[in-house]
Amino acid sequence: MSLVTLDGSQRPYLPSASDTLFSAKAAKQLSFEQIAQHIGRNEVAAAAIFYGQAKASPEDIEKLASLLGIPHSKLEELLSGFPDRGRTVEMPPKEPLIYRLYEIVQNYGYAYKAVLNEKFGDGIMSAISFSTKVEKETDQDGNNWAVITLRGKWLPFSRF
Amino acid sequence: MSLVTLDGSQRPYLPSASDTLFSAKAAKQLSFEQIAQHIGRNEVAAAAIFYGQAKASPEDIEKLASLLGIPHSKLEELLSGFPDRGRTVEMPPKEPLIYRLYEIVQNYGYAYKAVLNEKFGDGIMSAISFSTKVEKETDQDGNNWAVITLRGKWLPFSRF
Amino acid sequence: MSLVTLDGSQRPYLPSASDTLFSAKAAKQLSFEQIAQHIGRNEVAAAAIFYGQAKASPEDIEKLASLLGIPHSKLEELLSGFPDRGRTVEMPPKEPLIYRLYEIVQNYGYAYKAVLNEKFGDGIMSAISFSTKVEKETDQDGNNWAVITLRGKWLPFSRF
Amino acid sequence: MSLVTLDGSQRPYLPSASDTLFSAKAAKQLSFEQIAQHIGRNEVAAAAIFYGQAKASPEDIEKLASLLGIPHSKLEELLSGFPDRGRTVEMPPKEPLIYRLYEIVQNYGYAYKAVLNEKFGDGIMSAISFSTKVEKETDQDGNNWAVITLRGKWLPFSRF
Amino acid sequence: MSLVTLDGSQRPYLPSASDTLFSAKAAKQLSFEQIAQHIGRNEVAAAAIFYGQAKASPEDIEKLASLLGIPHSKLEELLSGFPDRGRTVEMPPKEPLIYRLYEIVQNYGYAYKAVLNEKFGDGIMSAISFSTKVEKETDQDGNNWAVITLRGKWLPFSRF
Amino acid sequence: MSLVTLDGSQRPYLPSASDTLFSAKAAKQLSFEQIAQHIGRNEVAAAAIFYGQAKASPEDIEKLASLLGIPHSKLEELLSGFPDRGRTVEMPPKEPLIYRLYEIVQNYGYAYKAVLNEKFGDGIMSAISFSTKVEKETDQDGNNWAVITLRGKWLPFSRF
Amino acid sequence: MSLVTLDGSQRPYLPSASDTLFSAKAAKQLSFEQIAQHIGRNEVAAAAIFYGQAKASPEDIEKLASLLGIPHSKLEELLSGFPDRGRTVEMPPKEPLIYRLYEIVQNYGYAYKAVLNEKFGDGIMSAISFSTKVEKETDQDGNNWAVITLRGKWLPFSRF
Amino acid sequence: MSLVTLDGSQRPYLPSASDTLFSAKAAKQLSFEQIAQHIGRNEVAAAAIFYGQAKASPEDIEKLASLLGIPHSKLEELLSGFPDRGRTVEMPPKEPLIYRLYEIVQNYGYAYKAVLNEKFGDGIMSAISFSTKVEKETDQDGNNWAVITLRGKWLPFSRF
Amino acid sequence: MSLVTLDGSQRPYLPSASDTLFSAKAAKQLSFEQIAQHIGRNEVAAAAIFYGQAKASPEDIEKLASLLGIPHSKLEELLSGFPDRGRTVEMPPKEPLIYRLYEIVQNYGYAYKAVLNEKFGDGIMSAISFSTKVEKETDQDGNNWAVITLRGKWLPFSRF
Amino acid sequence: MSLVTLDGSQRPYLPSASDTLFSAKAAKQLSFEQIAQHIGRNEVAAAAIFYGQAKASPEDIEKLASLLGIPHSKLEELLSGFPDRGRTVEMPPKEPLIYRLYEIVQNYGYAYKAVLNEKFGDGIMSAISFSTKVEKETDQDGNNWAVITLRGKWLPFSRF
Repeated sequence: MSLVTLDGSQRPYLPSASDTLFSAKAAKQLSFEQIAQHIGRNEVAAAAIFYGQAKASPEDIEKLASLLGIPHSKLEELLSGFPDRGRTVEMPPKEPLIYRLYEIVQNYGYAYKAVLNEKFGDGIMSAISFSTKVEKETDQDGNNWAVITLRGKWLPFSRF
Repeated sequence: MSLVTLDGSQRPYLPSASDTLFSAKAAKQLSFEQIAQHIGRNEVAAAAIFYGQAKASPEDIEKLASLLGIPHSKLEELLSGFPDRGRTVEMPPKEPLIYRLYEIVQNYGYAYKAVLNEKFGDGIMSAISFSTKVEKETDQDGNNWAVITLRGKWLPFSRF
Repeated sequence: MSLVTLDGSQRPYLPSASDTLFSAKAAKQLSFEQIAQHIGRNEVAAAAIFYGQAKASPEDIEKLASLLGIPHSKLEELLSGFPDRGRTVEMPPKEPLIYRLYEIVQNYGYAYKAVLNEKFGDGIMSAISFSTKVEKETDQDGNNWAVITLRGKWLPFSRF
Repeated sequence: MSLVTLDGSQRPYLPSASDTLFSAKAAKQLSFEQIAQHIGRNEVAAAAIFYGQAKASPEDIEKLASLLGIPHSKLEELLSGFPDRGRTVEMPPKEPLIYRLYEIVQNYGYAYKAVLNEKFGDGIMSAISFSTKVEKETDQDGNNWAVITLRGKWLPFSRF
Repeated sequence: MSLVTLDGSQRPYLPSASDTLFSAKAAKQLSFEQIAQHIGRNEVAAAAIFYGQAKASPEDIEKLASLLGIPHSKLEELLSGFPDRGRTVEMPPKEPLIYRLYEIVQNYGYAYKAVLNEKFGDGIMSAISFSTKVEKETDQDGNNWAVITLRGKWLPFSRF
Repeated sequence: MSLVTLDGSQRPYLPSASDTLFSAKAAKQLSFEQIAQHIGRNEVAAAAIFYGQAKASPEDIEKLASLLGIPHSKLEELLSGFPDRGRTVEMPPKEPLIYRLYEIVQNYGYAYKAVLNEKFGDGIMSAISFSTKVEKETDQDGNNWAVITLRGKWLPFSRF
Repeated sequence: MSLVTLDGSQRPYLPSASDTLFSAKAAKQLSFEQIAQHIGRNEVAAAAIFYGQAKASPEDIEKLASLLGIPHSKLEELLSGFPDRGRTVEMPPKEPLIYRLYEIVQNYGYAYKAVLNEKFGDGIMSAISFSTKVEKETDQDGNNWAVITLRGKWLPFSRF
Repeated sequence: MSLVTLDGSQRPYLPSASDTLFSAKAAKQLSFEQIAQHIGRNEVAAAAIFYGQAKASPEDIEKLASLLGIPHSKLEELLSGFPDRGRTVEMPPKEPLIYRLYEIVQNYGYAYKAVLNEKFGDGIMSAISFSTKVEKETDQDGNNWAVITLRGKWLPFSRF
Repeated sequence: MSLVTLDGSQRPYLPSASDTLFSAKAAKQLSFEQIAQHIGRNEVAAAAIFYGQAKASPEDIEKLASLLGIPHSKLEELLSGFPDRGRTVEMPPKEPLIYRLYEIVQNYGYAYKAVLNEKFGDGIMSAISFSTKVEKETDQDGNNWAVITLRGKWLPFSRF
Repeated sequence: MSLVTLDGSQRPYLPSASDTLFSAKAAKQLSFEQIAQHIGRNEVAAAAIFYGQAKASPEDIEKLASLLGIPHSKLEELLSGFPDRGRTVEMPPKEPLIYRLYEIVQNYGYAYKAVLNEKFGDGIMSAISFSTKVEKETDQDGNNWAVITLRGKWLPFSRF
């Protein structure tokens, strides 16, 4: 089983913390599943911390420091600020796996809007009051299926 | 409860069938939920047919014609070709609801890739061998939550 | 005092309702201030309905129909769907007045983020649970000042 | 309460002064509110100086040097030139908080223009003879609201 | 001496008034110099009215109507709104004459900024409190030179 | 009076000479007005040399070397090549002062073309056989006005 | 031997005259070589008139009208204005033949600049005081070669 | 007579060989004309080698090494691979000299295509089986003219 | 078995001939395989004629006219010109099937170049002296595979 | 016979492994054909590993390490992660060889789609369950032809 590592060429798009975190992950040979379990968060959230896309709480920092063998004060300095989100992916994404997600938005965007509007009224699904998870299913023919769930609070447009 | 209609200014981005379908939907005052039930497909798929993003089978066409009161031969002519997908949404999306989905890809794209790669190996989640659905949940405080599920076959990169 | 009208060359970017609404507004010589007062909404919201950027409630439609002398059933048909927001302004905006607002975001974007993050934590100011208004002030030297207020709910990023 | 810090990956978009200023801010554990109070300017303006988007006066430099413990001559050299504004934010903004502000311009741009034109005539709200502030409100249900005020001089187009 | 006319292919970028104005100008065989003299404005401003880039005052409309033989009420309807500026030129400009002006900004932009900042301090030259003119000079060798003057109010950045 | 300096973050867009020239200018506390006077060129041309947008003649290099206290051979090596023009400004310009110039082209581009074509015939105003200057005017109310003059040779399109 | 015709889908990029000219050319079965000979201009210039990229003189209009059987007054009206150049080709060009020319600029742009600068000094080759021609050569193996010549006046940058 | 040199800010767009070649050229004070003569190639081709846009043959490398005083093995290592063409010029080109060439393609693209199609049939002029040269002409009034010749094999589209 | 039809919304990107050809194809219920067989060309070439991307010879036009029941003179008029290639696909392609081909170029572009350069030397594979075909294979598990073959003449860069 | 090398200016677009691999390839003077044979993969796949576009299996890593004389542990560290595909080619490609492939997609995209849809139904050719190869053919006249084969699994759109 291969683990995700960080290639140097990705660094300009990532915060300084990413390098420290991924190096330690590689040295300890830890998967995101193991890391997530240790800090009590979802795998996607754990990975998002590594890519600078989610904020680590003081407890997360403590647990990550101990699990990964990084001095606590160093990790705290690296992770105590606020994420500058959105920079990791160049849009439209060139990476085939990420492009497929983008393509789903491109193809089904208005279909989602139509169904959501009829179900909930005029508003949006929040991407902030939001959680997500990834699951693996194997069907009877042995094929694997990836299941991604997006769950966001419904925000109606205010009347003013 | 409002129903989704088609505004004339969206027509250049949509196939000719959209106009016929949405007009009939408005005249019959049908929701996508009702239409989906009638043709035995998911609501998102039903809406995707209306926006020219999914192919209707001969049976779908028959059922849509009868439900919507459109002459069968006319609907067959409009829907018998192959969808020219992807044109409905201008990217990056300007529509706030669709933008939120785009933003999820932008923010969590590499986190999804990392988790999927560690769970499945080198490959992608197909957007073709793929289904999706939208659900509504209401929490104990009365807040509504939208839940979108994406389910795609895992395709490993071929070795060659 | 001039009133805002709709030029034909803007139509491709606006819903069909805009033409009907602006024609009636011109015929009745009504300002957005008068229209807003009549329907009990803010001027910006009233104008946003005219540009297809806000949803009119059934009561709004009734009041607009009677004020503007548009048959109620016609206006209902035009306004009963869900707005397809975001299409009116080409970005970056070429219009000098709108560009100035864009420039404020461009210049002060990270300053706003820094101040908001320190005041509220990790999250965003909602543009959906949101209201805005425009006010006119005149200083002692007779200079006019425009004051735009943006008020949005603070949404903290969910922990997951 | 977390403080805003500067991540190394943002440096190419920021003037050299930013690094010095943010390092000192982190070392002294000062918020922008405290810094603003000390130099007698608005928080947003204080943050804008840190991001190279506003000019510091000689007095500002003096006060910042003493508050932050930076040698005066060094700070003077770094801040004595003229800001090269606009480089910090990539447009359209990928950062969710900043995107929301951009989206407000995108959605309400023409509504603002319509209301401003009817209130003030043909002209623009200046983004130069301009001030802005951020406030925090908490409603009776305990929800927080961010209020951003934009105040700019009205400039009528010259007749020539 | 040829006169400037309006080609049909430019219409999508211009307000409806342009067509009426240019047709009348062609029928009357009037130059912008003659039109400008008649309405007491600068030639560039006169042309800008024709391209929808400047607002005509009630007096301008009256004089244009009589000079061009357009019914006053028709011209009033076409010109009474507020210009939606900026749409006529696609940027970067493809038209060679306009490109040269763009190139001057591209090449000398920072040189202008440097000289203006040292002469006036931190601020901008307004493009709103602004006038411009075009003059023709012929040197002793018989070469023609175009002289364009840009005159804008200096706006210092507000301290806040 | 502040002087224009060069911030390190601008270097990738500028030739190597810029750094040497601006450092010496800062050390000697010289304005572009003083430098221009010394080398007998216009201020804008002097600044353009600093930004790599104009070629310095051997005499310019000699005078600059002596005025700025830079070894002549070093400056000669840095400035003896041909400028690679156009790289300093990212288009559309994000800098507010430079954007205003860009906006003038965007708004008045076709008006300039119309007036120039009627005055001179079919051709362009050269941006190469070209000079420019910046002047400061103060009106009776004490307001400052910036006046930029563009003077270019008229080039008629060749008949072939 | 096929003749070049105008397809309706190209019309939005071309002036109204193009349609008239190309229809007449097709009806009379004339090549650009024949047309050019008749009006005493180069073939490329003749074609450029058809695409709205060159100005026809009164004599050109007269000769074209008689050769093509178009009423003189109609052609005069269509061609008497000034070309709005540059709109026919979308850049980067998608048309393979035109792309090859673009690629030559892309690949050899700096090589041309280097050779021209060393031969002529600091300046440009004018594209206005400019002529061009296309020739056909056949080598001894029967291969055809296209030879395009570009001849432009050298314009040195003015010293100011 | 100035020689073309390489400014450090151009390096990211050029192969590593460029730096070595241009430094040696500057040290030896050689023009591209002299270099071209020495290696028996056209000046443009010689310059193209310096910018990484043409492949040097083993003989070219030998002659360049001896002429420029660069160790043969070093130059061989730098030049033995295959050019990664097209990166030197950012498109649309910002450099005025290169822009003029681009503008010729933009303005006359379809005219060239029309004339070539009528002369040669359906196909393209190759930019690969291709040569080019630059010549200087001086007319009787002492004006200099640059003449660029493009000569490419005609490739008809294959029938399949 | 469904046949490919032409939706009205695709027309702006296609020549006028496409509409006539696709209507007749639909009326006659012919596949591209049948059409290709009838005119003795490859299926891809046949489809390319329908999309205006390949030139039909006089014989092709005759055979298409008789097969599709289109008056010969009408088809001749529509198809006798030269294709204006490249407009049908917006790049990057939004259509999922076409995007996959684009992605192959994006992912394997440099790998193809490396292998081709080592096999053939410095040059390109022509897309003009070029043919292509599509084949269907079914493996022993009943899976279908699409096989696309691209065959182009190798063109070495000329030495000049 | 020249070998493909890696120029330093390409490094920002490539993973760190590329440098190590290409240096060793150059030192050992190995072609991709030889490397491919050694690891039992196709040449294109071998090159794709070098450009970070394909994943090397543990066996590939072992064989590459021994063939290229790179310490196994170093290569394992460099290649054990998952490729971040798509970054090597800037789109649209500026490199002429790669552009030709892009142009084939641009010109024949809809023709491929039409033929594939009629042959296989509604779906796509996978670029993941995919292999490709490059072959060299020489015709009787001694011309070389490059043949690229793309073979992908057909994926029908799921019905849901």
